[in-house]
Amino acid sequence: MKSYDVVVIGGSAAGVTAAVTARRHYPGKSILLIKKEKLVPIPCGIPYVLSTVGDPNKNLIPVENMSSSNNVDCIVGEVMDVNRGSRLLTIAGSEDITYDKLIIATGSVPLVPPIAGSDKKNVFAVKKDVPYLEGILNSLGAAKDLCIIGGGFIGVEIAEECRKKRSDINISIIEMQMHCLQLVYDEEFCIIAEKILKEQNINLLLDETVDSLAGGDKVEKVVLKSGKEINADMVIMGIGSYASIELAQKAGLDIGETKGIKVNRYMQTSDDNIFACGDCAEKVSFFDGKPSALKLASIATMEARVAGANLFSVSRGNIGVIGVFSTVLGDHAFACAGLTETQARKKGYSIATGAAEAVNRHPGCMPGGANLKVKLVFESGSRILLGGQAIGALSGGEVINTISACIQQKMTADDIATFQAGTHPALTASPIAYQLVNAAEMAIKNMISGK
Amino acid sequence: MKSYDVVVIGGSAAGVTAAVTARRHYPGKSILLIKKEKLVPIPCGIPYVLSTVGDPNKNLIPVENMSSSNNVDCIVGEVMDVNRGSRLLTIAGSEDITYDKLIIATGSVPLVPPIAGSDKKNVFAVKKDVPYLEGILNSLGAAKDLCIIGGGFIGVEIAEECRKKRSDINISIIEMQMHCLQLVYDEEFCIIAEKILKEQNINLLLDETVDSLAGGDKVEKVVLKSGKEINADMVIMGIGSYASIELAQKAGLDIGETKGIKVNRYMQTSDDNIFACGDCAEKVSFFDGKPSALKLASIATMEARVAGANLFSVSRGNIGVIGVFSTVLGDHAFACAGLTETQARKKGYSIATGAAEAVNRHPGCMPGGANLKVKLVFESGSRILLGGQAIGALSGGEVINTISACIQQKMTADDIATFQAGTHPALTASPIAYQLVNAAEMAIKNMISGK
Repeated sequence: MKSYDVVVIGGSAAGVTAAVTARRHYPGKSILLIKKEKLVPIPCGIPYVLSTVGDPNKNLIPVENMSSSNNVDCIVGEVMDVNRGSRLLTIAGSEDITYDKLIIATGSVPLVPPIAGSDKKNVFAVKKDVPYLEGILNSLGAAKDLCIIGGGFIGVEIAEECRKKRSDINISIIEMQMHCLQLVYDEEFCIIAEKILKEQNINLLLDETVDSLAGGDKVEKVVLKSGKEINADMVIMGIGSYASIELAQKAGLDIGETKGIKVNRYMQTSDDNIFACGDCAEKVSFFDGKPSALKLASIATMEARVAGANLFSVSRGNIGVIGVFSTVLGDHAFACAGLTETQARKKGYSIATGAAEAVNRHPGCMPGGANLKVKLVFESGSRILLGGQAIGALSGGEVINTISACIQQKMTADDIATFQAGTHPALTASPIAYQLVNAAEMAIKNMISGK
Repeated sequence: MKSYDVVVIGGSAAGVTAAVTARRHYPGKSILLIKKEKLVPIPCGIPYVLSTVGDPNKNLIPVENMSSSNNVDCIVGEVMDVNRGSRLLTIAGSEDITYDKLIIATGSVPLVPPIAGSDKKNVFAVKKDVPYLEGILNSLGAAKDLCIIGGGFIGVEIAEECRKKRSDINISIIEMQMHCLQLVYDEEFCIIAEKILKEQNINLLLDETVDSLAGGDKVEKVVLKSGKEINADMVIMGIGSYASIELAQKAGLDIGETKGIKVNRYMQTSDDNIFACGDCAEKVSFFDGKPSALKLASIATMEARVAGANLFSVSRGNIGVIGVFSTVLGDHAFACAGLTETQARKKGYSIATGAAEAVNRHPGCMPGGANLKVKLVFESGSRILLGGQAIGALSGGEVINTISACIQQKMTADDIATFQAGTHPALTASPIAYQLVNAAEMAIKNMISGK
């Protein structure tokens, strides 16, 4: 039986980050990381293994390297049980291990809806599992009619990657909502995304729900509730995931409303010596403190940095999830932080919005220039920023992080309008036209004119 | 004689932005912008007219378009006098005009040091003047030995552009400091910049001061105080600028310590009805409230947004200048916000620094990836961020703006370590490796270990 001061269960983004954070904050403690699988895919990189990266083995988190360079021990094994009284872990494939502090970062599992036929051959979910992803890649090589269920981030990214890999097959996306990506962007931006997908000859079936998957052993058709039938010799489902909480449940830890492990703002579970972080942990919204179903690697690592730092002495709090997303479709970045206009209205805020668009170079003829549009959503009484979207030039992928900082700091429209941005001809829009600042000004103009 | 509610003097970044801001905030007011020259160059774009853009006429602020689309009248003329009692402007080339509120945005003039021979032919400063810049471009076409005095931003940008235009000439930079760009980056980054310049066969003379310019009518040599002589049939001086305050002085407005027009935090001059903004206005540091010699278009536009909004009702304050700079040398972005480590130490702060480097893609084999290094400087007692530098990938040009937001909001190392950044394989480093967050963690690690 071995003993560690800190044991982290989980080798994906949250687990690795929690272990490294614990090491940085507690140089004298012994730390063990236990991961279930030998090879851990980079979660956000999974769609890109299908073409751009080309191989799941090139999309791995370097868990061993990060562990050894941070003086963290690392084993492969499945934790079967947590004995909280004796702080003892029973592990399949390893001797028992005791801990002083435990971090559970067991992640999530892709949701497979209870659709008839979803157990047929060539029907895939998006599992964080290298051999399984190799299976998807193999099937893709032989497919003729690919049907993707779910038009969120994973769905649209997979569609585009499959198109890059196979110019000769039919690709369809089936989405329940009126638009792809509707939960993260306002309609005007969803429409741009859909245009880019259609230009790649990706067929969009919007406002449609899957009834069943038909065929023999192997899938042949997707049957929609509307009655439509889509040929499909391959189906990939990208409709979300649920928290892996079996171990936590077995250990008797409290579970929250969204079926994640219940944690306080210090990432402690109902047992003071056990922390949870990442997809397995329950989240609350930054905006209203209500449970949030968001699951993102960037949230997971933030939570891991809170958990890892707080193990032996609480120094950090989790302010709640803002939700900062980004993707690329065609040559357009699509990035969002906080609430969209639609979401803010739905939550009952009185809002004002402003938008500004400009080339991200000055003068616009400088090489590498592309249009970037920023839209901001403010609470109209306090003028505090609730959310922002940045669409167009790839620099939007970092602009959204400035917007995230403004949201986290509850900056007002006036604060942002007088924000001190650095600008350069070869890097950004001019200081006169800088999109973030002008979007705030346009929102104020709209507030003044009562729009 | 005509009357306007608002008159703005100056057609460059500050003037145009002030006029547009006034329009957005005061939809009912009549606004006039008076510019001295018909064609107004984009100030930060001036180095790039020498090769990348190729023509000063392609690097113009669209003053007329911006004026007309914002319902701002625009005339070309030089204001000769301000009669503050009767609020009357005497203008060369136009009838007299009265104002209710006046904004002075007369900018700055390049500094030409009192060096013997600086009046010789083929000796240039970097004037914001299209025919003058055409003159530089003409001379560059015939030059054999170009000598640039000053290794700050303008100097190094001009050197690189001249090399792009003329692969066959000798180019030298003479810099008084030990390093190029030393006032804005810490030494380790200056050394990278210098390496990039040397690789382009640009000769660097560091820690050298110019004694005189020798030759006949036309410059032939630069003589250094060290005794060295450099052949030079063309000289460009890029050593800074001074505020254009003649008109303000004539009008009897107070002038500050740095010889800028004295303003309060609302950008009001010593006359309540007259505002000043941009290079002509005195600045104070965000960090200690002391006068600052910084002059940047991004500061000018921020001040213009304060002045324009405050004309008839004060709603915005200027929190003092942070200084957010960026440039590109070779394929490397060099960006800085706030204080460097050297500056912070010089100001007497007790500090801790942290740095993190990673490819701005994940996995690193995703296309378009480049290394980006972020260095952060914290006050070690409060752990508040004082400054940051982002060097490498071009996305650093926007990362620096997130850093700027963190500085403005006085975020601590823990705030930044748990910052909610959006990340994506095709846009940024992974959430595990995100440079900004990890630089904060490394600073904390250094604080913990007492480094």
